[in-house]
Amino acid sequence: MGKSADTYYCVDPWKIIENGFSPEHAMVSESIFSLGNEYTGVRGYFDEGYSGDRLLGSYINGVFEEKKLETSSYKGIVNTMTYMVNAVDWLYTRLQIDGEELDLNIADYRSFVRILDLKTGVLIRSFVWRTKTGKEVELTFERFLSMEEPHMGGQRIRARALNFNGNLQVLAGLDFSQPHKSVGENRWDCISNKAEGNCCEIAAQTKQSKHKVICQCRFLGDMEQMAPVQAGEKISLLSFTLPLNQGSQTQFSRIMQILSCTEKAVAPEKFERLSAAKKDTFLAAEYDALKAGSCKWWEQMWRRSDIQIEGDAVNQQGIRYCIFQMHQTYHGENSKSVIGAKGLTGEAYSGNTFWDTETYCLPFYLFNNPQAAKKLLMFRYHSLPQARERAKALDCEGAFYPIATIDGRECCNLWQHSSLQLQASTGVAYGIWHYVNVTKDEDFIDTYGVEMLVEICRMLATRGDWSQKTGKYGFYGVMGPDEFQMMVNHNCYTNFMAKKTFEYTILVINNMKATQKFADRLKILSVDSQELLKWADMARNMEIPYDEDTRIFEQCEGFFTLPHIDVDKIPVTEFPLYSHWSYDHIYRNDMIKQPDVLMMMFLYNACFTTEQKLKNYDYYEPRCIHESSLSPSVHSILASELKRHEDAYRFFEFATRLDLDNYNRNTSEGLHTTSIAAAWMNIIYGFGGMRSDGDILSFHPTIPKQWRSYSFQILLGDDTLFIKVEQEKLRIHTKNGSKQTISLYDRNTVIGQEEVVVKIPEQWRTAIDE
Amino acid sequence: MGKSADTYYCVDPWKIIENGFSPEHAMVSESIFSLGNEYTGVRGYFDEGYSGDRLLGSYINGVFEEKKLETSSYKGIVNTMTYMVNAVDWLYTRLQIDGEELDLNIADYRSFVRILDLKTGVLIRSFVWRTKTGKEVELTFERFLSMEEPHMGGQRIRARALNFNGNLQVLAGLDFSQPHKSVGENRWDCISNKAEGNCCEIAAQTKQSKHKVICQCRFLGDMEQMAPVQAGEKISLLSFTLPLNQGSQTQFSRIMQILSCTEKAVAPEKFERLSAAKKDTFLAAEYDALKAGSCKWWEQMWRRSDIQIEGDAVNQQGIRYCIFQMHQTYHGENSKSVIGAKGLTGEAYSGNTFWDTETYCLPFYLFNNPQAAKKLLMFRYHSLPQARERAKALDCEGAFYPIATIDGRECCNLWQHSSLQLQASTGVAYGIWHYVNVTKDEDFIDTYGVEMLVEICRMLATRGDWSQKTGKYGFYGVMGPDEFQMMVNHNCYTNFMAKKTFEYTILVINNMKATQKFADRLKILSVDSQELLKWADMARNMEIPYDEDTRIFEQCEGFFTLPHIDVDKIPVTEFPLYSHWSYDHIYRNDMIKQPDVLMMMFLYNACFTTEQKLKNYDYYEPRCIHESSLSPSVHSILASELKRHEDAYRFFEFATRLDLDNYNRNTSEGLHTTSIAAAWMNIIYGFGGMRSDGDILSFHPTIPKQWRSYSFQILLGDDTLFIKVEQEKLRIHTKNGSKQTISLYDRNTVIGQEEVVVKIPEQWRTAIDE
Repeated sequence: MGKSADTYYCVDPWKIIENGFSPEHAMVSESIFSLGNEYTGVRGYFDEGYSGDRLLGSYINGVFEEKKLETSSYKGIVNTMTYMVNAVDWLYTRLQIDGEELDLNIADYRSFVRILDLKTGVLIRSFVWRTKTGKEVELTFERFLSMEEPHMGGQRIRARALNFNGNLQVLAGLDFSQPHKSVGENRWDCISNKAEGNCCEIAAQTKQSKHKVICQCRFLGDMEQMAPVQAGEKISLLSFTLPLNQGSQTQFSRIMQILSCTEKAVAPEKFERLSAAKKDTFLAAEYDALKAGSCKWWEQMWRRSDIQIEGDAVNQQGIRYCIFQMHQTYHGENSKSVIGAKGLTGEAYSGNTFWDTETYCLPFYLFNNPQAAKKLLMFRYHSLPQARERAKALDCEGAFYPIATIDGRECCNLWQHSSLQLQASTGVAYGIWHYVNVTKDEDFIDTYGVEMLVEICRMLATRGDWSQKTGKYGFYGVMGPDEFQMMVNHNCYTNFMAKKTFEYTILVINNMKATQKFADRLKILSVDSQELLKWADMARNMEIPYDEDTRIFEQCEGFFTLPHIDVDKIPVTEFPLYSHWSYDHIYRNDMIKQPDVLMMMFLYNACFTTEQKLKNYDYYEPRCIHESSLSPSVHSILASELKRHEDAYRFFEFATRLDLDNYNRNTSEGLHTTSIAAAWMNIIYGFGGMRSDGDILSFHPTIPKQWRSYSFQILLGDDTLFIKVEQEKLRIHTKNGSKQTISLYDRNTVIGQEEVVVKIPEQWRTAIDE
Repeated sequence: MGKSADTYYCVDPWKIIENGFSPEHAMVSESIFSLGNEYTGVRGYFDEGYSGDRLLGSYINGVFEEKKLETSSYKGIVNTMTYMVNAVDWLYTRLQIDGEELDLNIADYRSFVRILDLKTGVLIRSFVWRTKTGKEVELTFERFLSMEEPHMGGQRIRARALNFNGNLQVLAGLDFSQPHKSVGENRWDCISNKAEGNCCEIAAQTKQSKHKVICQCRFLGDMEQMAPVQAGEKISLLSFTLPLNQGSQTQFSRIMQILSCTEKAVAPEKFERLSAAKKDTFLAAEYDALKAGSCKWWEQMWRRSDIQIEGDAVNQQGIRYCIFQMHQTYHGENSKSVIGAKGLTGEAYSGNTFWDTETYCLPFYLFNNPQAAKKLLMFRYHSLPQARERAKALDCEGAFYPIATIDGRECCNLWQHSSLQLQASTGVAYGIWHYVNVTKDEDFIDTYGVEMLVEICRMLATRGDWSQKTGKYGFYGVMGPDEFQMMVNHNCYTNFMAKKTFEYTILVINNMKATQKFADRLKILSVDSQELLKWADMARNMEIPYDEDTRIFEQCEGFFTLPHIDVDKIPVTEFPLYSHWSYDHIYRNDMIKQPDVLMMMFLYNACFTTEQKLKNYDYYEPRCIHESSLSPSVHSILASELKRHEDAYRFFEFATRLDLDNYNRNTSEGLHTTSIAAAWMNIIYGFGGMRSDGDILSFHPTIPKQWRSYSFQILLGDDTLFIKVEQEKLRIHTKNGSKQTISLYDRNTVIGQEEVVVKIPEQWRTAIDE
């Protein structure tokens, strides 16, 4: 892969530590130290302002701005850009001593340390500032976003003068004037702006989309001489003085609350009225209690989600960071929330959630927070109207799910992706199936799932076509998960996923038909037996390109005859290819960007023999350049299953510390959220060897040679399955004592509260690579 | 095709006549009555202003404006929009009687007639205007663009009061303030603006591209009280009075001159200085003499270009209109001129010339104006630097010619066209070959042609690739002339044209090698024998998808297996498909937009057997929706050869009167110039059965049942071959008496000054369709 770690943060099992500040890493650190609570997210920028490189980003899930593009207006081509818009800087603080303003880009300082505590979600930064007049003050900045009260967060700033008595002059408040960097301008119009007593409040709405946000903050602490300051239409400020007495600490804290409304039709006045109702909660909130509540949330979370790795501190930190970020980004708080490709940590990918949510992110929630998994699927249910509209725009019936979206509408402006990639739709179907297979939530499938499935099938039945020559059904002019084969026929993944979608939908409907109480429901969906027969026919006759002799699935029609390119011989300077190769040049050889056939084999693992997986892994992996950050994990997972243990570990390392070690050199733009989700899968499905596509969970745990042990846990109903894998044996039990039947190394095994110790079979030991 | 004629203009062998004015046809008529002289063109808008629908367009060949687009910046994707920009309204006139301004949108008028005389290129419009006060004046507007003095044109306005004595108040001058309609704004900055004596002058430059234009006009006639008028920065105006005495006619005329400079670097002052040198010619010019000179040019042109059809007045008018427009658009005046897709008659297609210039337009000039044909090719020679740049942008060596251009750079913003269509490059190679084959201009090939050929071959040798499976060479990720198969492998046309390009280039170089004097030339091109061997290998092993059993060439790999669509069953309301179908929907079945395999068979006619042509015609024509206006002619030509005489005539009618009868309902946007060129081919290559891809010209004339006779002429060296075809026989001779050997119905025949009369062989009679 030719990618290397940029090791910068200190290794610690529970903390991300930056010891000393490196301006070159300023923006990477902003991403790494991002806080989020699903509802809102804030990058780790400096509270006090900074004149060096920075991306001051503060985002609210689902709050976006729009822009009409000058692109062609052919039918089905999206020509609005929709992006999660940079919102309010609620940490705004300016600090002065003797008229000198603190700015770490030019200030004299020492003992800089920044620590994100993964256990509690609290971010602390401290350093000693030495003013030009030689005054030294130790400053500590603390912040958190409440996981318990999703609209709230807190900031506390402590100061201790080391060699003088005096004052810290403070300006603090709310700033709605920051630009959205990639569009180069601020997109907010101010509705109202107040600063009085110890409170600031500002309400604003986006210029085009008319999304409305109100932010309030309240200061408490040791300050004096508090007074409002006029600072501009979009800034609400208070000024005050924090007295400094040599050796002793003074401090102030703020509680903030953000409320938002994404209904264009709601008038600003109405929004302000509605928001006023929540003001009491905000006024009653208290810093320490709010923080304690949030810490408790994290404590509970870790109790059910922690993964421990003994003997590998680096990856221990990496995987905990991934788990932490997953919960920060999303935990099912709100059915309008999405998991953006960069979570709430940057502008890149416009805050859009991509087609792979159900394939890459859903599993994490399925086994850590099933309610959140359901919420993710409910987002798709609630956006059925938009998916139906999209299907119409693409001359299809039913529902066509967007390849990228914030609010359910297709937001991807590149027609070659948004019109040709069907994997969002089949991904939703897969997600429904996977969720129901694991949770047995029959109510969900009957009430919500079936409607999505039927609409997806209708799309598949109108988007596909029959070959003139073979009489087989399949999809023409599509792009599979590997985006390097742009416009192909009979992409194996697409066809296979469609086949599974048809089959599952027919099964679901037949099950419902057998029960009288669903008659009305089915009537509403107006699926008749003729439609079911048609789908069955399509599923049965689905073209799955496959070479019987070699056991290799052909990624798409004609893939085997494409010119060959030896990806190892592409000079490393030509990566990423999108920046160095002519756009069209990428799309005409047998090089692939990310798993496609292998992705299918991962998702429907039980449908393929080990031999097939081996042959296809050996064929496709050498052709893959892993240009997508999603690629290594899936390869690692399959490599574990195929006993390619060296490969498995190599790919794992990359995924787990992708952002901490800035492998792709673009962490500054935000975190790779979907890859973070994949890193979790990499432990559970990879080394843990779990498969969740059968009737019961199955496991083939292996352990990297490098580790002493690792353990992970899986929520199962009301209980938690705990597995610890050591080099020669594994230990497994349920935490609450329920009996769970799983398949362990192909043998059905009942697990209960008492720890079962199983010797790892010889062939699953990792010492010897096959 | 489901397209019908909108018959509006009167039929006349030499004139286009509009009897009475229909506002619904206002913009169509503006296009139809466009004048051009290659250097500049002006739509047939009303001199006196008009408040109804109009597109006031006045263009200068090669003068364009640019705009940066917000599209993706992937390598090789063009994100500048370049468009021939609307320039100066040099006909600007406003007429008032008693303070009432003439505006045909609201005025009371009668006896409106507008006549374009194809014989002379003079446009006349007249009507009687009745003012609100009951005064009646007969007005006649005349205009022409000089074919002799390409920078000049004239306007004459005559007035005759029918029932009163009084005055016509006139404002007349130059207007640079008109918007470019599709971008919604005027793109000129004024450099200088003068109005004094009887002259107006205005110089301006485009805002972005810094192209500079100066326009001058001078008024003479019966006017009185002439004085300059302040009318705005970009308008230069004089006011005067034309006395009206009942029954007698008064008039005024203007001579105008336009000069331009497309060098960004030339400063406005320098441009004005350079232009001043030409002022004397302008001041010396006189209306009647200028007009007479232009009329004479047309007379000479018609003597060598006329086509006569006896027994079909409608198509007689149609074909003459086509010939007229071809000469107006281009006649080789300037090697910077291009043949825009709409000529100089509208904004559509941005004034860009497309890939098909050498295949569709070149033949007309080859046999009517060989110097113009050479100039067309010289445009490609002069733009080799841009084509080399483009090749680099597309990761190729050599030269990649643009799919659409004004100045040699690629101007097409749709990567799927500009990066995937290789037919501009192979088209240039074809044009060189065709030109040399017909003219035997060895000097051209040795001096210019070979360099283009070598660079095109280098591109083809780096853009293509070898199949892993078959070991054959060919092109991956391409779009052939049929733009409905967007991104395919082994497009038969592309591969075949590349093969011919390699072969011809090798032949040319080997011929040059045999002559000592070219040693230096070849050294400069640095083609060594290894490179030639490589090209020969690629040519020899070129994949040409072909089914031996059916004799059908497969348009691209996999075409035969695509889903079938019965194009006749597509409701007529769904056309044009680009407006009614989802963009991606168009590209995934066996429907085609325009000839692809058949195009190849037309261009290299001698390479295919009649049986092959028949089988392929029968296969592809029913799959073709002729969405391109270029499609019917090629089908008509092949249909004639294949004795599908009904088809031939049906397709011919459409092509020849496409604009006059507004078949595509978009003539308002401008004329379909390339289709106009194809209409000429339709007579010569279609009914005339001429083929110019052999050693000598061959003919298999047929005649539509509907006609008494038709005749056409072909420039051959210094002579003209004249052929008249009647129902049973044809007459043929050379005008100047040279002896020319041609193949006539497959028999070599020497033609001289004496008319040879040949009976049309039974099998080439059109009475019976096969």
